[in-house]
Amino acid sequence: MDTVVQAEIEPGMSVDALVKSLKDCGFGARRLSMAADIYESMLSDSYVKFFTLSGAMVPAGMRNIISGLIRDGHIDVLISTGANLVHDIIESFGHHCLGAPEFDDAALRDMGLSRIYDVYLRDEDFVSFEELMQKILPECREAISGRELLRIMGSQIEDPRSILRAASDRGVPVFCPALPDSMIGLQAWLQSQSRPLLVDAFADVREIVDICYDSPRAGIFIIGGGVPKNFALQSMLVTPKSFDLAVQLTTDTPEAGGLSGATLSEAISWGKISADARYVTVYGDATITFPMIVAATLSRLKREE
Amino acid sequence: MDTVVQAEIEPGMSVDALVKSLKDCGFGARRLSMAADIYESMLSDSYVKFFTLSGAMVPAGMRNIISGLIRDGHIDVLISTGANLVHDIIESFGHHCLGAPEFDDAALRDMGLSRIYDVYLRDEDFVSFEELMQKILPECREAISGRELLRIMGSQIEDPRSILRAASDRGVPVFCPALPDSMIGLQAWLQSQSRPLLVDAFADVREIVDICYDSPRAGIFIIGGGVPKNFALQSMLVTPKSFDLAVQLTTDTPEAGGLSGATLSEAISWGKISADARYVTVYGDATITFPMIVAATLSRLKREE
Amino acid sequence: MDTVVQAEIEPGMSVDALVKSLKDCGFGARRLSMAADIYESMLSDSYVKFFTLSGAMVPAGMRNIISGLIRDGHIDVLISTGANLVHDIIESFGHHCLGAPEFDDAALRDMGLSRIYDVYLRDEDFVSFEELMQKILPECREAISGRELLRIMGSQIEDPRSILRAASDRGVPVFCPALPDSMIGLQAWLQSQSRPLLVDAFADVREIVDICYDSPRAGIFIIGGGVPKNFALQSMLVTPKSFDLAVQLTTDTPEAGGLSGATLSEAISWGKISADARYVTVYGDATITFPMIVAATLSRLKREE
Amino acid sequence: MDTVVQAEIEPGMSVDALVKSLKDCGFGARRLSMAADIYESMLSDSYVKFFTLSGAMVPAGMRNIISGLIRDGHIDVLISTGANLVHDIIESFGHHCLGAPEFDDAALRDMGLSRIYDVYLRDEDFVSFEELMQKILPECREAISGRELLRIMGSQIEDPRSILRAASDRGVPVFCPALPDSMIGLQAWLQSQSRPLLVDAFADVREIVDICYDSPRAGIFIIGGGVPKNFALQSMLVTPKSFDLAVQLTTDTPEAGGLSGATLSEAISWGKISADARYVTVYGDATITFPMIVAATLSRLKREE
Repeated sequence: MDTVVQAEIEPGMSVDALVKSLKDCGFGARRLSMAADIYESMLSDSYVKFFTLSGAMVPAGMRNIISGLIRDGHIDVLISTGANLVHDIIESFGHHCLGAPEFDDAALRDMGLSRIYDVYLRDEDFVSFEELMQKILPECREAISGRELLRIMGSQIEDPRSILRAASDRGVPVFCPALPDSMIGLQAWLQSQSRPLLVDAFADVREIVDICYDSPRAGIFIIGGGVPKNFALQSMLVTPKSFDLAVQLTTDTPEAGGLSGATLSEAISWGKISADARYVTVYGDATITFPMIVAATLSRLKREE
Repeated sequence: MDTVVQAEIEPGMSVDALVKSLKDCGFGARRLSMAADIYESMLSDSYVKFFTLSGAMVPAGMRNIISGLIRDGHIDVLISTGANLVHDIIESFGHHCLGAPEFDDAALRDMGLSRIYDVYLRDEDFVSFEELMQKILPECREAISGRELLRIMGSQIEDPRSILRAASDRGVPVFCPALPDSMIGLQAWLQSQSRPLLVDAFADVREIVDICYDSPRAGIFIIGGGVPKNFALQSMLVTPKSFDLAVQLTTDTPEAGGLSGATLSEAISWGKISADARYVTVYGDATITFPMIVAATLSRLKREE
Repeated sequence: MDTVVQAEIEPGMSVDALVKSLKDCGFGARRLSMAADIYESMLSDSYVKFFTLSGAMVPAGMRNIISGLIRDGHIDVLISTGANLVHDIIESFGHHCLGAPEFDDAALRDMGLSRIYDVYLRDEDFVSFEELMQKILPECREAISGRELLRIMGSQIEDPRSILRAASDRGVPVFCPALPDSMIGLQAWLQSQSRPLLVDAFADVREIVDICYDSPRAGIFIIGGGVPKNFALQSMLVTPKSFDLAVQLTTDTPEAGGLSGATLSEAISWGKISADARYVTVYGDATITFPMIVAATLSRLKREE
Repeated sequence: MDTVVQAEIEPGMSVDALVKSLKDCGFGARRLSMAADIYESMLSDSYVKFFTLSGAMVPAGMRNIISGLIRDGHIDVLISTGANLVHDIIESFGHHCLGAPEFDDAALRDMGLSRIYDVYLRDEDFVSFEELMQKILPECREAISGRELLRIMGSQIEDPRSILRAASDRGVPVFCPALPDSMIGLQAWLQSQSRPLLVDAFADVREIVDICYDSPRAGIFIIGGGVPKNFALQSMLVTPKSFDLAVQLTTDTPEAGGLSGATLSEAISWGKISADARYVTVYGDATITFPMIVAATLSRLKREE
């Protein structure tokens, strides 16, 4: 039986060295190290790479890591909540502010600040967001898919660090299955009052199922569960295929029965993940675990080049 | 300063008596008791009553409580995940099975069982679901809203305990902002290949915003966060109004910054909940806290009649 | 395969009826119902009944339920944190106050209030506590056990609702394995400066191991994990016996590897719980789940009398 | 108002560079970065450095990091659970094994393996542990403190990577307030049957309170809450002083009212932490966050030398 190897710390050590030092530890340390190993396989070999994004990752500072992964060819299909895309657009011209979770919320409202835990957003950035949306939301007489809408929007964003812009530049499809549930949805509805704009709610289903069918092998990196996780998994479900590699980062745990905390093993019973897949769930705040895994994995790819 | 009053247990006591006995306790006990007080106000007075539903509540056995609330006039607007509606339809002709969370998932797959934590679903029920969907999904040459699609489907479900049927019978609008992210979405897409079926992704936005505008006073009961929570809150955001009463049941906590664990206080900074609203979050598994709150609240309404 | 039976709510229903209605549900609902079934067996049959107490249960209002269980003969051995015993003593002459978790802590300090989440304790009650301790802490020339110390203290508390007094009256041993880690420990040390008071740190081990040896069958009810959980389980470990029934209420989950969230199944690998034991863990705030389980269980015993 | 600065990843980057890159992010990322800044202050300046240890950190592979901190002079007072010390002793001659959390626990028992989440311990290592304890547990006619007992034991452990040995070598006091609640307690009791061994339960209180009194300035690093956290904080409480710097790593959250999840702000209301202290709680699995913070902090100290 393999033994636990106590972790070792060296001053100045790299993230990759630390993650490797946790390989034969227990609990979250071992899962984190396994996640980097699986992600290394996913990025090194010929897998179609799905990436799902939930939780307020962009307001929390994870935007450049994600757009960087897209630009480096490490994301082939992105499935996101609407909020992360809204905040990506806001970051393209404005910014989020460092706040405090215990500040009085009624006072914040009077000051024109909306709070996301310890991050604030200024009303003026929402106004600018609305103005930009009037420019980048297209007119279209024919019904289009949500993915196409997001592609058109992304192509008009100037900031090269934008997730939507990077995806547009690289031809990476971006799916947002709950598009109406976001400021993008609100703006799209407002503008559809005065000009033609029709998104076919189910068109995205065909597009992502086609991608699943065409994937000889597929891997998935899941941040935070929710609708993006389920949409990616259910799309694979209707094909004869399954995901072969999977990493999930979540703060939720299985006991309450919700999807965001559901184990990846559970997805095997549905046929969404293959019975012989390599997979791991890392429990904890993705603003910590995600940068660690990416930093460790990219170091390894670099060496292989 | 008010004092903690130690809870008292009597054999045979009612749920309402227990919940009242927790009123001046600490921690979750006090929050649970406060939730029943707020929900009593919501159901007793002239509030427009929003209800948002996330987490696998229907597979876990909460379906009849929800359809009962609809039939009794205690829900005016329902916002749900797709999965809960799918499982509601399945319960209308089939059932879920009692399983175990630690059973081997690959073996379950071979046995034709899909697992949701400790609940199993049989493949044959999915087949029946697909057959039923072919009957109840409408043809429509004009684009319709997701809400209209769900109304048409609900009107054709025979089981009176169905959530969708109860909503259809009572004229309660049902919104599912992530409709593509469900078996309903998959079936709708499949059938749209051979017959006309077009859902306008943003039509629901107009409908729910109109309801928000027309609500003199509004209350919201939130189970589990996610897209349904955000969709209800953001719809109120674009009106000059806010929710006046709010109860949230969630297993998530605020520290990771995600929406499902965000405090209701945070929603005040956005203007989604009014600064002088009465609100409470009960942390814990809603399959426990939800039945307790409903049982306590309905007892009080009964006495007032 | 057994089917999920949807829960039903009746206005005015008893706690026991609600708990029974959750029996064939999923997730936490089913576990809660199973906990009541196991606890009913434990209290009905000839089990030696261990009860472990962690978390700030007394400040949160659970004191009378616990002392009531002792007086009714439903607890044979109590293992507690020091804090719960300190607060039990304070409640015997004073009280805790209803507070708010978000109040400024530096201001509270200036006001002479110490905070336990949303419960406050007044400095004056600590002063009275110290005065009382000077009276009830014994002098002893020979080393005594912690259990004996607590028995002597309990016998001098006047309030009949006190946990320590109820235990003393009923001859129920109370163990506090981390006795130095409490205001009792601080006071004992202070007084040992001026008069003889010596507690043998390991004497309790012998006493509880003897009880384990002499238990033909044993059940355990665990609130909150921690030292009390481990002390009870490890004491059984050194005997050839194991616990036959076990209920655990905890907010912690297994993934982080700590004892408070460890499954009861894990305890089987150690031999602390027997391989054919009936056991269940209910995840969630014990200030909610504990009163529910006790109310349901006592109702059943009543009917059997 | 300061702005969120999006994190940047470079292949090959050091842990310290990553932690610094998270400084102006949100959520856990920002807290982690703040923890490293506070720990850097604690280790750089003349603070008496308390370190509290809960959770199965040694079985999970964190032993060498802790003993390394002791040897480097970064821990002045250690307060630990008994279990971590037991496993430290076992690692001094044996080892823990890499296991799986879902393996059948009854089968593990038959195989002579005891499980701690995904780590196994072999029965034979327990046997060796008992043999070693017979050698290193002292005889003493006079009552000694738990700290003195642990010092004597530590001085006889041969492995230089041992926590107890490192503490003994460096003269660092080790407190274990729940000493009876561990295999050390069981062994001590067994041997006290046949030879003199008496530990005064309250002697440790005097020793640690004296240290608190003599600390011009004090900092505390808390892993996992529990008894060690409370014992350190309450010891400071009886002095006119408070902790000036504090870092807490925990998986627990405040809402359930337990000590392990209690905020450090709450400790200000008690006077355990000073109102103007710098402090932060990092929520998440300490097997991930602890190595990151130590690696980042040690890198900075190195550069300063």
